[in-house]
Amino acid sequence: MRPQSLVLALAALLPGAPVRADEGMWTFDNLPVARMKASYGFAPDAAWLHRLQVSTLRMSGGTASFVSRDGLVLTNHHMGRAFIQQLSTAGRDFIRAGFAAGSREQELRIPGAELQMLVATEDVTAQVEKATAGLAEADALVARRNAISAMIKAKEASGLTWQPVTLYHGGQHWLYGYRKFTDVRLVAAPEMQLAFFGGDADNFTYPRQNLDFAMFRVYENDKPYHPEAWLSPAAPPLRNGDLTFVAGHPGATYRQETAAKMAYARDTGIPARVASLKRRKAVLEAYAASGDEPRRLAATTIYGFDNGIKRLEGMLSGLVKPGNLEGVARAEAELRARVAQDPALKAAALDSWNRIVAALARQKELLGDAPLAGDREILGSDLLARALLLVRMPVEMDKPATKRLAEFGEGSLKATRERLLNPAPVSLELETVKLTAGLTDAVAVMGADHPSLKAVLAGRTPEAAARAAMAATKLGDAAVRKALMEGGTAALAACQDPLVVLARTLEPLNRAVRERSQAEVQSVLDEHGGRIATARFKVYGTSMYPDATSTLRLTYGPVATYPANGTLIQPFTTFYGLYDRAASWGPEASAGAWALPQRWWDRKDRLDLATPFNFAYACDTVGGNSGSPVVNAKGELVGLNFDSNIEAQAGYYIYDGTTKRSIAVDVRAIREALVKIMDAAWVAAELDGR
Amino acid sequence: MRPQSLVLALAALLPGAPVRADEGMWTFDNLPVARMKASYGFAPDAAWLHRLQVSTLRMSGGTASFVSRDGLVLTNHHMGRAFIQQLSTAGRDFIRAGFAAGSREQELRIPGAELQMLVATEDVTAQVEKATAGLAEADALVARRNAISAMIKAKEASGLTWQPVTLYHGGQHWLYGYRKFTDVRLVAAPEMQLAFFGGDADNFTYPRQNLDFAMFRVYENDKPYHPEAWLSPAAPPLRNGDLTFVAGHPGATYRQETAAKMAYARDTGIPARVASLKRRKAVLEAYAASGDEPRRLAATTIYGFDNGIKRLEGMLSGLVKPGNLEGVARAEAELRARVAQDPALKAAALDSWNRIVAALARQKELLGDAPLAGDREILGSDLLARALLLVRMPVEMDKPATKRLAEFGEGSLKATRERLLNPAPVSLELETVKLTAGLTDAVAVMGADHPSLKAVLAGRTPEAAARAAMAATKLGDAAVRKALMEGGTAALAACQDPLVVLARTLEPLNRAVRERSQAEVQSVLDEHGGRIATARFKVYGTSMYPDATSTLRLTYGPVATYPANGTLIQPFTTFYGLYDRAASWGPEASAGAWALPQRWWDRKDRLDLATPFNFAYACDTVGGNSGSPVVNAKGELVGLNFDSNIEAQAGYYIYDGTTKRSIAVDVRAIREALVKIMDAAWVAAELDGR
Repeated sequence: MRPQSLVLALAALLPGAPVRADEGMWTFDNLPVARMKASYGFAPDAAWLHRLQVSTLRMSGGTASFVSRDGLVLTNHHMGRAFIQQLSTAGRDFIRAGFAAGSREQELRIPGAELQMLVATEDVTAQVEKATAGLAEADALVARRNAISAMIKAKEASGLTWQPVTLYHGGQHWLYGYRKFTDVRLVAAPEMQLAFFGGDADNFTYPRQNLDFAMFRVYENDKPYHPEAWLSPAAPPLRNGDLTFVAGHPGATYRQETAAKMAYARDTGIPARVASLKRRKAVLEAYAASGDEPRRLAATTIYGFDNGIKRLEGMLSGLVKPGNLEGVARAEAELRARVAQDPALKAAALDSWNRIVAALARQKELLGDAPLAGDREILGSDLLARALLLVRMPVEMDKPATKRLAEFGEGSLKATRERLLNPAPVSLELETVKLTAGLTDAVAVMGADHPSLKAVLAGRTPEAAARAAMAATKLGDAAVRKALMEGGTAALAACQDPLVVLARTLEPLNRAVRERSQAEVQSVLDEHGGRIATARFKVYGTSMYPDATSTLRLTYGPVATYPANGTLIQPFTTFYGLYDRAASWGPEASAGAWALPQRWWDRKDRLDLATPFNFAYACDTVGGNSGSPVVNAKGELVGLNFDSNIEAQAGYYIYDGTTKRSIAVDVRAIREALVKIMDAAWVAAELDGR
Repeated sequence: MRPQSLVLALAALLPGAPVRADEGMWTFDNLPVARMKASYGFAPDAAWLHRLQVSTLRMSGGTASFVSRDGLVLTNHHMGRAFIQQLSTAGRDFIRAGFAAGSREQELRIPGAELQMLVATEDVTAQVEKATAGLAEADALVARRNAISAMIKAKEASGLTWQPVTLYHGGQHWLYGYRKFTDVRLVAAPEMQLAFFGGDADNFTYPRQNLDFAMFRVYENDKPYHPEAWLSPAAPPLRNGDLTFVAGHPGATYRQETAAKMAYARDTGIPARVASLKRRKAVLEAYAASGDEPRRLAATTIYGFDNGIKRLEGMLSGLVKPGNLEGVARAEAELRARVAQDPALKAAALDSWNRIVAALARQKELLGDAPLAGDREILGSDLLARALLLVRMPVEMDKPATKRLAEFGEGSLKATRERLLNPAPVSLELETVKLTAGLTDAVAVMGADHPSLKAVLAGRTPEAAARAAMAATKLGDAAVRKALMEGGTAALAACQDPLVVLARTLEPLNRAVRERSQAEVQSVLDEHGGRIATARFKVYGTSMYPDATSTLRLTYGPVATYPANGTLIQPFTTFYGLYDRAASWGPEASAGAWALPQRWWDRKDRLDLATPFNFAYACDTVGGNSGSPVVNAKGELVGLNFDSNIEAQAGYYIYDGTTKRSIAVDVRAIREALVKIMDAAWVAAELDGR
């Protein structure tokens, strides 16, 4: 019996387990030890866990790890891409050509880079509960914040950076203490073409051939940092069926949403978003078809739509798969029955399921107004959103901070100002097409007779309205935006820029839609979602894992095939596969998505083409696990997580162990590339501890 | 704009075309020339078509072609596999090791092999219609048969073998005249492991790496035959987007079924068959898990279930795809409207759609009896089916031939006797498990309280009933079956073999189910399906292609990618891909499905690994196109059709050009393998015309 079958078979035997085998992003202090031992005859001990914890690093939006005694750090190329870009100049394009320091002296310091190591965690649930005991909800909110702030202040002397962490949607409160590293230098990175081989087409898919790694080094006092622990490559070769573990910082999951919310996402929310993206994409594609320069200009936006559609359709595939939502509903029915049996829980949460159903019905009614909502983009246009910020700023800044719209509140004001002043050039042509697309979608969603939309279009077609707004606007110029921002009410009132005029028309419409959605839908979903989450934690406690919160988690599962495309998918790919796809697509297909840089052809015969390249494995990851180390049961490095398959996108809502697979770069591929192609044998030797 | 997009765009412009661009298995005399020219700026002329027609050969269940002036023949390994097996001996296993004649003298003659070349076709519709004019349906049937027999008899002097061909479900009647070749010799074949690389798992899927070819030679008078025309490899390399053509003998399609029949297949027929296969497979798998010998014994049966499930789920995927059945319904509504406008058609066929709906409703009611039907197998058991034949034979043979059950009729009696006498050993253990599976499924479908099933089980579990029937039976012995068959009524009546006893119980039950289904469902579907088909032909004539009939057809379309698995699928694979899958799966996965024979490792470095291996292309093929030559617009050989992707299985019912792809072996891979691995450079040189 293969390990995978064994896992599933054992899972079926576990009585009343609220999660299925291998599911879960567990905190290091609360692993499902019994289940791990039953499935694999192994569960990590405290020393194993500590070593992995202090080898694992957090970086903005993802994960990295120490991989040598001298502070060498491994993460994804796509995690380090902004740094690599930042170090590139016109003459040395490390994104295109890759980079490898010839020695430590040639490593390149990255201004502003930061890595964090989690070194202390403290459960302060009891203190927080004590501070809030007996208080009404509004008072409790303030008391909780104050208690946490006081506890963090008391820890200042530790030298660590402390952050509050809420788990189980409020079931537990923790303080996590990080050690920060700010001298980070680039050691080696392959060409982006290798790191992102197959481009947007292959994104979120498998089989894959992505060398998605980059290596950095942490320095302290201008010397390589010597970490307490680091990960070294495994000696025994990783094989299909081998147990693996991933440490990392998964960002967000929605697995504890109610069945009604998932059904809404399946039947209404996701289909509506996909339909809008497709409508907007069609407008961009028609524009792109008009010439080479339009095609170039529109490419990133179209790819963005494609990837959005791909991820949403992946999520949907899990929600529509027969049995999945039924499983959620069964688990929910069990929880509701337990809640109903406990007077306190019953009073607090039993009605919450109904309240959520009512709020979702209201949300559906409000869908017809949705195109006028939004803040990052309004009707598809970033520049129109910035015009709206300018129009609102004088009004909002006259209010107390707590009464303003979120983007002018304390936490966001700085970023809002920076966004307005950002000097990056704006293509008014592209903004015209994007606004046309947004208005076209709005007509489809709202109907041409919707009074708000009629006010915006004023009898014009979407394209004519967009052209009128963008043709004569000066807001593409950062200096003009700055003058308007600093000119206050008077400057704004005098301004007849057509984009400002359009934003003035939109202001009350956008505000009304946002406020209604917040008051009638979002606040109800938040409040009652929180009540259900609290009730669930009181019933099941830590036998469940908490939904992901961008904090350190451990997940486990075997290297594994899965059924797709009518066959079984290969658990590993090899360098043969890289050359197969490059040769079979040729260098020009999909704008060179499967092209290989010349040195990969010139040096091909140096490679052992049978070297494992990427592998699929059944650890339970989501976005935020990018750059996570993958280790074997001995805690040895076997891979570098970088993506998951299309089926895994469903995992934001529902875990389906038969098809959800994470994807890693095999550490053997990294070593092979460093030595044979990248002229960085010394880095490979350091990785190997030599 | 890529060719594929162009095709789709043009298809949208064609007014009222009853088929979509590139759809269709066209007869050589009736190509959609205008559409081909509009899509590709090219349509074959008469000389081009004649050359391809006489280069193409028919063989049992598939297709082959002449590929040299000296009568070299190319087809699939899986088409020639029985011949290769037949020539193998214990000491020389050509299935395992492959075969390559060192010279023409070493070519191996295959007793019983036969190839047919279509050299003449004659439309006899007018004669048939004249012979049947004014006759009632039953008389017309006889008159039609007689007229066709007389016309064939009159052609005896031609030396050809003439066969009647009915196209458009009766809209046209043709006579096809074949020249037969009976001296066929094996020239070269790779190892089956290469021809069927990836085994049952990869069957019906793509990307693929199958060297599914074998080469034969036709002799006449002990000398190589010199055909009038043959196909030679293309000089310009085949590329993504290039137009291709396939000549071959597609077996059967159901595209002219009514929307109601397709909806029945989607909602009831196929799901019920899949569910039964899965239930039976589960029983076989439980048995297989009990040890190595059971696993070996059950493997072929389980693979059979898997492939059945795979093909049915592929068919289903097309029926459930949004828009597909709606398209069928729209076309049908248009046809019904046209039928309603014509008094003669209206009288003949307008009610037929309703009659089919009613018959399907009855079919659904009868589904609960279905497990007792069947003739090849009864309740999953081949041996039980043979016992039933024995029980029935004396009774049936006392009737006139036209009144007997089909398997005892004139056309089938010989095969039925051979089946009973077949001396191949029977595993009673496997028959026990298969009967257990069949009875288990019957309980699920019929309910344990169904009186017929209660009679069969007699209070026992499925397993106990199966064991009782198989434990003591002697029918596994061909001599025992022979004695019973020849002993007639008396021997049968005296026989207390438990399988015969069970067959006696089943006899009236099986007969009743079959007769009721024939009388109340099948006859109605046949009659009214025929009426609708005739009406359709009268409305659309030859602007449509006829459903497949195992006769020569031409289909066309470009080499093309398609969207699947979250990405775009590579139009070609290469030898790199072969080694990628072999290396990444390893030699042991799935019983060696992706293992490579040793010489493929030993001689790997001789190969140009970038050589195209298989390719996906948008020609419209089905089963029967196995072994079909794929040619370019110049009529040059570019590939050898061998399969289609999982999405194409839907094409039995509905053509979907966005994802349906045929799969061919690239002729460059055949040449590369002959020269570099198979020690058959002289064959490659002959292929190249050198």
